[in-house]
Amino acid sequence: MSGPSGVNAFAQAAKEASRVLALAPAEIKNKALREMASAVRRHAAGILAENRKEAGKSKAAGRTAAFIDRLSLDPRRLDDAAAGLERVAGLPDPVGEFSDFAIRPNGLVIRKMRVPLGVIAVIYEARPGVTADAAGLCLKSGNAAILRGGKEAIKTNAAIAGALAEGLKACGLPAGCVGFIKDADRAAVRRLLGLEGLIDLVIPRGGPELTEMVRRESSIPVLAHEKGLCHTFVDASADPAMAEEICFNAKAERPGVCNAMETLLVHAAIAPLFLPPMAARYRRAGVELRGCPLTRAILPELRPAQEADWDAEYLDLILSIKVAGSFEEAVDHIARHGSGLAEAIVTGDAALGERFQREVDAGAVYVNASTRFTDGGEFGMGAEMGISTQKLHARGPVGLAGLTCEKYVVTGQGQVRDSRTK
Amino acid sequence: MSGPSGVNAFAQAAKEASRVLALAPAEIKNKALREMASAVRRHAAGILAENRKEAGKSKAAGRTAAFIDRLSLDPRRLDDAAAGLERVAGLPDPVGEFSDFAIRPNGLVIRKMRVPLGVIAVIYEARPGVTADAAGLCLKSGNAAILRGGKEAIKTNAAIAGALAEGLKACGLPAGCVGFIKDADRAAVRRLLGLEGLIDLVIPRGGPELTEMVRRESSIPVLAHEKGLCHTFVDASADPAMAEEICFNAKAERPGVCNAMETLLVHAAIAPLFLPPMAARYRRAGVELRGCPLTRAILPELRPAQEADWDAEYLDLILSIKVAGSFEEAVDHIARHGSGLAEAIVTGDAALGERFQREVDAGAVYVNASTRFTDGGEFGMGAEMGISTQKLHARGPVGLAGLTCEKYVVTGQGQVRDSRTK
Repeated sequence: MSGPSGVNAFAQAAKEASRVLALAPAEIKNKALREMASAVRRHAAGILAENRKEAGKSKAAGRTAAFIDRLSLDPRRLDDAAAGLERVAGLPDPVGEFSDFAIRPNGLVIRKMRVPLGVIAVIYEARPGVTADAAGLCLKSGNAAILRGGKEAIKTNAAIAGALAEGLKACGLPAGCVGFIKDADRAAVRRLLGLEGLIDLVIPRGGPELTEMVRRESSIPVLAHEKGLCHTFVDASADPAMAEEICFNAKAERPGVCNAMETLLVHAAIAPLFLPPMAARYRRAGVELRGCPLTRAILPELRPAQEADWDAEYLDLILSIKVAGSFEEAVDHIARHGSGLAEAIVTGDAALGERFQREVDAGAVYVNASTRFTDGGEFGMGAEMGISTQKLHARGPVGLAGLTCEKYVVTGQGQVRDSRTK
Repeated sequence: MSGPSGVNAFAQAAKEASRVLALAPAEIKNKALREMASAVRRHAAGILAENRKEAGKSKAAGRTAAFIDRLSLDPRRLDDAAAGLERVAGLPDPVGEFSDFAIRPNGLVIRKMRVPLGVIAVIYEARPGVTADAAGLCLKSGNAAILRGGKEAIKTNAAIAGALAEGLKACGLPAGCVGFIKDADRAAVRRLLGLEGLIDLVIPRGGPELTEMVRRESSIPVLAHEKGLCHTFVDASADPAMAEEICFNAKAERPGVCNAMETLLVHAAIAPLFLPPMAARYRRAGVELRGCPLTRAILPELRPAQEADWDAEYLDLILSIKVAGSFEEAVDHIARHGSGLAEAIVTGDAALGERFQREVDAGAVYVNASTRFTDGGEFGMGAEMGISTQKLHARGPVGLAGLTCEKYVVTGQGQVRDSRTK
C-alpha cells in the first residue's frame, strides 16, 4: 500500500465491508472472533519470531527498557490477546437493541435502534496486543476497523493482522472488516485522518503526543483519552483507616496507569491525624511526597510542591499533597487541575459524598473507593477500548456501546405533516 | 468587547457561570426562563425598533427578500420567541437523572448521572429568534451559552440578549450564563473557535458555508446539521393512495426545509401505475420533475435528471425521480446519496419495512410516514436545537438531552483494587 490512492482504496474497502458487517448477526460475528482467536494461536510461533526480531532492533536502537517491554510479546501475552477475542465473543451484542419506545398522539411509533458507527480507525503505538484487542471490539460492535500501530512493531502487527484475516475469511466476512496499514510512513496516518467521508471515528491509543497529533490533523471526529490527573479528597469525617487504604491503593498499587492518583487533598481538620501515618506508609513503599505549605507544617521533611506539581501526571511513585481548608476548596482545586478522568472523596458523611458526585465534573466520581477501579472490566463492560476524557459521545470507560450510536426508527400508517396547524 | 483577551474573558465568565448553572435546581432555571420571557415582552417595542432599522439597512444593501424575511421580526414572531422560553420552562429537567444502576460483585454501586456539557457556543445567521431559542435550551440543560448571530442583526440580537440578561438577574443567576458577542468582526468567531479549554461544544445553525467554516476552524467539538437530502422509496407493495399522500407531503408541503424529500425512488413494478397520477399532482402544485431514463420511459415529458441531481439539496419545488429495479438498488442509492438526515419507505410489507429501518443509515428512518416529521417537536422533545446529521454524540433531532452528557458515579464502602488477581 502506498500513495494517497492506497490509503483511500483501503478506507473505501473498509466502508464497503462496514455495510456488510453492520447487518451481520451476532452468531457470525462471534464465530469470526473465535476463528480469529484460534488463528492467532495457530500462528503464534511466526508472530513471536517477528516480534523477537523487532524487539531486538529497538533494543539495538537504544530504546528504553519500558518501551521494549511494551513492544515485546511472549507466549502468555499472545495467548491473552487470543483469549481477549474469545471474551468479546461472549459479550452481548449491542447492535439492534431498541430503546425509548414512544407512541405520538398522531399514532407514529418512535423507537431508537442501536447501530454501528461504520468505520473506526485506531492509531496506536508500541503495544502489539492492541491489534487483536481493537479489531475484536470493532468487529463485535459491527464496525469495520482500520488499524495503524507503531512503526517499531509493524511486522509483528502485520503477522497478527494476517491471522485475524484468516479468521474473517473462515466466516465469509469481507477482508475489509479489519484492515491493517503496513505503511510505516507517518504521511499514511495523515492521509487517513483526512478521509472524513469514509471514516466515522478515529481513536488514538497512546501517549499525549499521539493524541495531540491526531486531534490537530484529523478532520474526522476523535474519541480520546487526554490524560489522567486524578485526585482523592480525604474529608474531615473520613474513617482514617479506610482513607489510608484507598489513598495507598490509588497511588501505589500501579502508579503508571491513568486512573492512579496524582494529588492527595486532605481536609485541614483531619490532616494532623491522617497525614503522618499515611506519609510513613507511602515512604515505606518508596513514594516521593511533595507538599503544600500546610502539609509541610505537619510533615516538614517533605519537598515543597511547586505550582507545576498540581498539573503533573507523574505516572510514577510521586505524589503531591495539599491540605484544603474546606470541601469547596477541594472541589475547586479539582475543577482547576483535574483532567476529568476520575476523582474520589473519602467521607463518613453520605450527603457530602453525594454532593461531591454532583459537583465534580469527571468521567467517574467515587465515594469511598479507589480511582483505580476506572476501567471497562471493573465497570462490567467485559472489555474496553480505552477511557474517554471527553464529554461528547462517550465519557469514562468505553466498551462496545461507546463504539455505536442510535438512530430513530419511526413507523406510521400513512401519516403526513400539516405545518399550518403548528 | 474587542481583541483576543475580550473573547477570552467572555468565555472565562461563561465557564465560571456554567459551574453555578450546572448545580442550579430546576425551579430556579424555570423561573429564569419565565423572567426572560417577560423581559422580552416588556422590551418588545425597543427590540422591534432595532429590528426595523436593521431590516431597512439590509434592504438598502440589496439583500434578497428571503434574507430580509429571515431577518425580520414582527410582534407575533417576537411573542413566539417569548412563548418558546415559557415552553422550555415547562419541559422536564434532564440534569441529575440517573440511569444504568448496577452493583458489582465487589459491592461497588455504579450509576450514570446526566450532567450539562458546560459551555456551548451557538453561531447562527440572520434569524434573531435563535437568540432566545438557543439561550433557553442551553439554560434549561444547565449549560452556559455564548451566542453569536449574523452581523446584519447584531443590534436586534443585542436588544434581545439585554432582555434575557434582565431575566437572569431577576433570579440571581450570573450574567455569564447567557453571553452575547456584539463584535461584528468574523475574527471574533475565529478566536472563539480556538478556545477549546473553555468551550465544550460549538453548534453552527445556518447554511452549509457557516457549518463548513465552523468545522474547519474549530478546535472544539462541533454538533452540526450538514445537509438534508432525503429520499422516499415507494415499494412494489405500497398502497398507491398512501404513497401519493406521503410523497406529496414530503416534497410539497414545505419544500424549503431540511426534512423535505429531494429524490423519489419508485420500485419498477409499481412505477407505471404510481407515477402518472403522482406526477400530475406534483405538476398542479408547481413542482418541477426530473427523471432517470426509466422514469422518462413512463413520463417522456420530464427533463432528464443529471448525475448531479442525485446529490442536490434543492430546498425548492424541484424533485428528481428514479425507478429502482429492486429494494437493494433503492437502499444502495440512499447509501450513496443520502445525507443521513431522514429516509422513508412506503410499503405494504411490514418485514420489508423493518429491513429498511435496519439497513438504511440515517438519523431517522421511516416506514409509511413522511420524512417531514423529523423535528424535535414532532418527536415529543418539546423543543429542538437543530437536527444533527452526525453519528457521534447526538443523532437526529437534538433536544435538551442532546445538550448534556453522562458521568459515572460510583459509591463504595472502602473498596481498593488488586491488579494481581486479574
